[in-house]
Amino acid sequence: MPLPSPNLYPDFNIVRLSHVESVVTDLTRSKAFYAEALGLQVTYEDGNRICLRALEERNHHCVILKKGEEPVARDLGFKVYSDSDIDKAETFFKAKGLPVAWVERPHQGQTLKTQDPFGVPLEFYHQMETLRPIHQQYRLYKGVRPLRIDHFNCFSTDVDSSVAFYNELGFRVTEYTEDEETNKLWAAWVYRKGGVHDMAFTNGRGPRLHHVTFWVPTPLAIIDLLDLMSISGYLANIERGPGRHGISNAFFLYIRDPDGHRIEIYCSDYLTVDSDLEPIKWDLKDPQRQTLWGAPAPKSWFEEGTLFEGAAVEEPKLKAQPIVAP
Amino acid sequence: MPLPSPNLYPDFNIVRLSHVESVVTDLTRSKAFYAEALGLQVTYEDGNRICLRALEERNHHCVILKKGEEPVARDLGFKVYSDSDIDKAETFFKAKGLPVAWVERPHQGQTLKTQDPFGVPLEFYHQMETLRPIHQQYRLYKGVRPLRIDHFNCFSTDVDSSVAFYNELGFRVTEYTEDEETNKLWAAWVYRKGGVHDMAFTNGRGPRLHHVTFWVPTPLAIIDLLDLMSISGYLANIERGPGRHGISNAFFLYIRDPDGHRIEIYCSDYLTVDSDLEPIKWDLKDPQRQTLWGAPAPKSWFEEGTLFEGAAVEEPKLKAQPIVAP
Amino acid sequence: MPLPSPNLYPDFNIVRLSHVESVVTDLTRSKAFYAEALGLQVTYEDGNRICLRALEERNHHCVILKKGEEPVARDLGFKVYSDSDIDKAETFFKAKGLPVAWVERPHQGQTLKTQDPFGVPLEFYHQMETLRPIHQQYRLYKGVRPLRIDHFNCFSTDVDSSVAFYNELGFRVTEYTEDEETNKLWAAWVYRKGGVHDMAFTNGRGPRLHHVTFWVPTPLAIIDLLDLMSISGYLANIERGPGRHGISNAFFLYIRDPDGHRIEIYCSDYLTVDSDLEPIKWDLKDPQRQTLWGAPAPKSWFEEGTLFEGAAVEEPKLKAQPIVAP
Amino acid sequence: MPLPSPNLYPDFNIVRLSHVESVVTDLTRSKAFYAEALGLQVTYEDGNRICLRALEERNHHCVILKKGEEPVARDLGFKVYSDSDIDKAETFFKAKGLPVAWVERPHQGQTLKTQDPFGVPLEFYHQMETLRPIHQQYRLYKGVRPLRIDHFNCFSTDVDSSVAFYNELGFRVTEYTEDEETNKLWAAWVYRKGGVHDMAFTNGRGPRLHHVTFWVPTPLAIIDLLDLMSISGYLANIERGPGRHGISNAFFLYIRDPDGHRIEIYCSDYLTVDSDLEPIKWDLKDPQRQTLWGAPAPKSWFEEGTLFEGAAVEEPKLKAQPIVAP
Repeated sequence: MPLPSPNLYPDFNIVRLSHVESVVTDLTRSKAFYAEALGLQVTYEDGNRICLRALEERNHHCVILKKGEEPVARDLGFKVYSDSDIDKAETFFKAKGLPVAWVERPHQGQTLKTQDPFGVPLEFYHQMETLRPIHQQYRLYKGVRPLRIDHFNCFSTDVDSSVAFYNELGFRVTEYTEDEETNKLWAAWVYRKGGVHDMAFTNGRGPRLHHVTFWVPTPLAIIDLLDLMSISGYLANIERGPGRHGISNAFFLYIRDPDGHRIEIYCSDYLTVDSDLEPIKWDLKDPQRQTLWGAPAPKSWFEEGTLFEGAAVEEPKLKAQPIVAP
Repeated sequence: MPLPSPNLYPDFNIVRLSHVESVVTDLTRSKAFYAEALGLQVTYEDGNRICLRALEERNHHCVILKKGEEPVARDLGFKVYSDSDIDKAETFFKAKGLPVAWVERPHQGQTLKTQDPFGVPLEFYHQMETLRPIHQQYRLYKGVRPLRIDHFNCFSTDVDSSVAFYNELGFRVTEYTEDEETNKLWAAWVYRKGGVHDMAFTNGRGPRLHHVTFWVPTPLAIIDLLDLMSISGYLANIERGPGRHGISNAFFLYIRDPDGHRIEIYCSDYLTVDSDLEPIKWDLKDPQRQTLWGAPAPKSWFEEGTLFEGAAVEEPKLKAQPIVAP
Repeated sequence: MPLPSPNLYPDFNIVRLSHVESVVTDLTRSKAFYAEALGLQVTYEDGNRICLRALEERNHHCVILKKGEEPVARDLGFKVYSDSDIDKAETFFKAKGLPVAWVERPHQGQTLKTQDPFGVPLEFYHQMETLRPIHQQYRLYKGVRPLRIDHFNCFSTDVDSSVAFYNELGFRVTEYTEDEETNKLWAAWVYRKGGVHDMAFTNGRGPRLHHVTFWVPTPLAIIDLLDLMSISGYLANIERGPGRHGISNAFFLYIRDPDGHRIEIYCSDYLTVDSDLEPIKWDLKDPQRQTLWGAPAPKSWFEEGTLFEGAAVEEPKLKAQPIVAP
Repeated sequence: MPLPSPNLYPDFNIVRLSHVESVVTDLTRSKAFYAEALGLQVTYEDGNRICLRALEERNHHCVILKKGEEPVARDLGFKVYSDSDIDKAETFFKAKGLPVAWVERPHQGQTLKTQDPFGVPLEFYHQMETLRPIHQQYRLYKGVRPLRIDHFNCFSTDVDSSVAFYNELGFRVTEYTEDEETNKLWAAWVYRKGGVHDMAFTNGRGPRLHHVTFWVPTPLAIIDLLDLMSISGYLANIERGPGRHGISNAFFLYIRDPDGHRIEIYCSDYLTVDSDLEPIKWDLKDPQRQTLWGAPAPKSWFEEGTLFEGAAVEEPKLKAQPIVAP
């Protein structure tokens, strides 16, 4: 199945991914991880909920930690260009027969809750409470010095269909992995905000959230985090890396939060704003696809993920498997 | 004069700044500087002209060195979203009473030549010959490891008016310097592609090109370039820096090419895609505006620039002066 | 067995490790690896032999590549403080009943060839041809930007005995790994020149050379080398890392040259000149000993090594095994 | 006057520079600077005195801040190889007719107080209270991540004579600046511990302490400190840099503590343990001597320094002047 042609004029204008709400079982423990080890800034906190932002963000939060019984993910939040784009989004999702609801979200303006056809819960808004810039408050930088949320990656049972749907929303493919035998997509990276992705899809039991990613300034920030986690009781939370992705060219590290939610730390991908940028194709059997330096990802990386609240999970259609570490 | 409200729906869609043609008096000498010292990749070369691209760019060139008698700058090139945007640009500029012409440009598709109301020559196109990706050809990285062209900075005799015009084109202000006594703009940074700027305006004799900037991965690449230039006969070409700008938060270095064209090397500004991002205001008298670490820029930095071919130069309306190094 | 007390006043004064001669089967192929990929500087070359130095070294060479049939290692070279120290070395080794010989070595002054009691061939000299400094010739820096040879690591069949012998020579232990069950040393790091080591011993079939190490300025140089090797046909030559050693605190990478000789790239250990510095003890079962971040070394790293020319190999006395990657 | 031949066998064995006691007028203010901004670790504190160590040091302190009326420097501390070396030092200094005294120093063993012939107060000891290693306690790293004290630099009224005296003590010259007209030394760098220097002399009114230097891991730590100081009320404490020294090849920054004591932050010089290493000569008129990138030092850097308690200051014999920033 060939890649769909980019939809240059989508019905409404999504600016970028914005935030995620993660249910965690112990707020104190999670706060230590996100605020002390990673270095995200707490912008709101009560007994049920902690909001955090990264250092160059002015929107109120990019992560909400919500106390709960099971470590699931709630809506993936996307910021749209204007209030009218939320209305257009409602029209679009309704026309697809997908459930839509206007919901109240603290610190956010008008918010539309809906889902994609595969069960991924989505949230669209334009306005969020903005906070004063802190990117030059160098006293606040610690941990991995996270600058901004960069992207979501979701397990999809049918990456071709996921790509086709997000393509309609105006997301464009920058890189993709094809199973050479079936000519089906095994993974794809799609963007709105001008980097390699705001969203990626990985073949697997889905829908599930594979990981949420934060952008950092240099690979040295990632090395600092590894050193810090290694002597702070987080050794077992290091899952994969550091390394250079073949896909995206980013320097990366994958870690797990205290509830197992996977987080990627990421830097040095490239600018993708050109409307005629050609996607880069990778073969599923190419080990440098995952890691340019050759090291395969561990089994857990391919198998484990976070359930979306209320979403039933199915097996992927495509059975092809990448190279996995022993 | 307050900042104009952002024009969220301009008449045509400019994606980003794209390239500049610099007239140089000795091609061999300039090639040594741009290709060997800076590390840009030569993509075309004949006895009159050398085209270069940076490492993550797929468009044919971001710099054209043209042999000539006087070191002037020709058109500032901008890439638009689609072919129809070029036509809309023609309509827009014609309606303003500005000269328009369809021109032939090697390696480019349909190209509109025009100028802004202050005499800055502009060029709009959608299609340029694309080359295969080389960002993972690590053998090619040298010099300062330039990844992409980042922005132009022009002297303007009336920054308020320049900002108002580019605002109409959909450029949004991210940061600006105000003269507190007159409430007039002394400098402003405006963007299309989602960083701090594609274009900036500095108060001064104009129109002139102040500098062209390349984005690099980390401050260490800039330190490497300083070391390299220092022992390669380019010591006198180092003009200002390294330092951290207060404005934009970027780590920077200013150098001069063999003809005196000013080049900035730059990294680590921030993402600006949010349509509700508030501009940051700086006071002209604040020394940290220029350099967060306090060092003022040298006199040459405020006074010298490259003439645009055929453009008459006038004195600035605003006489206020920033802090200058002795 | 407790660590021996440091011998603060050895019979002769060894300044530092200096060089190694590696037999390689294809000089052209090896030159490409050492000079182009790693970035060592060729200081002499004929059809049989290539000499190389690192960027801050003024001695003629730290590596000699010698053409031969089998990829073995020849003498490990050490520089002594003065000519009289070579004579004292002769007396010392003779008194131990070890073979000594005065040999001719190109580019070197008077040279004593001998061996340690376990069969490791050694070479002591004071004078080597010196070359002009090139550490500020920044045009020459490429590959991993190697600054100097840092240490040798050898497999030993009896690390306690190796440490006792080198202790007599004035090498002091900085860190060591003990098998908690037998209280015997599993590995040890001993130094002369003021870093964590000039020589290390690892329990295993020996004597064999485990690796030779080059010091580089920052972890980013190692990341650059990984990127370069990955796209230059050296993907399979990457063996282990990058990572942070628990022992020595160094940031490291292990690679194999085209003949399988193991090379470590290394930075950021610490100063050890204090005569009262206490050695740091590690437990063989502690996974952070090898890699602070937890990743175990691969099996090849524990098993494979380079034979010393003419030295018979025996099994280690200690059978305890560290954690090995699956 | 030619450089003296190195004294390879001095009367006693100095291992390295070790510590300095700085008199400060406000302990709280100084603690904020040294412990919070620079990131040195407090190891002792009372109402009169604060001891600090850098991250890889195990000796109790490298800086003592002593409350007092005038911001002077007390003894420059040097660690010797063994207790018997202190006795030999006493003999040596007595024979020179210099005052010697056995003094009590908290946290130190037997300590000899004396001075050099030019009035610089010196202190020799072998034993200091040692603390457990903290170099892998990555939670403690902040500010500029200081790893160890690196060297002292003193104004000397007669650099030739200073060099001759320290040469007798076994310090060897690594680099030096000569006034080409008089053939006299303008500055010299002399070492014991295997880097470019433990001590340096700069022509000027003396004796005075020019600066104390801390070693850091990479230039990025220095950039981080500049960012931090710039927004923490320490903007005026930045005096010179960042830059690359021609001499020593180190990346540097000069700052002033709240009392004006000058501190250098420094990384990336080179190993100097070879007993036959040739000194590198620089011409006083060479601007790259000071800063490889060409920027001259400010006037304050050449003129201001810290008085040694009780030492009378004289004018330098040599009147030649280097290039100074306007």
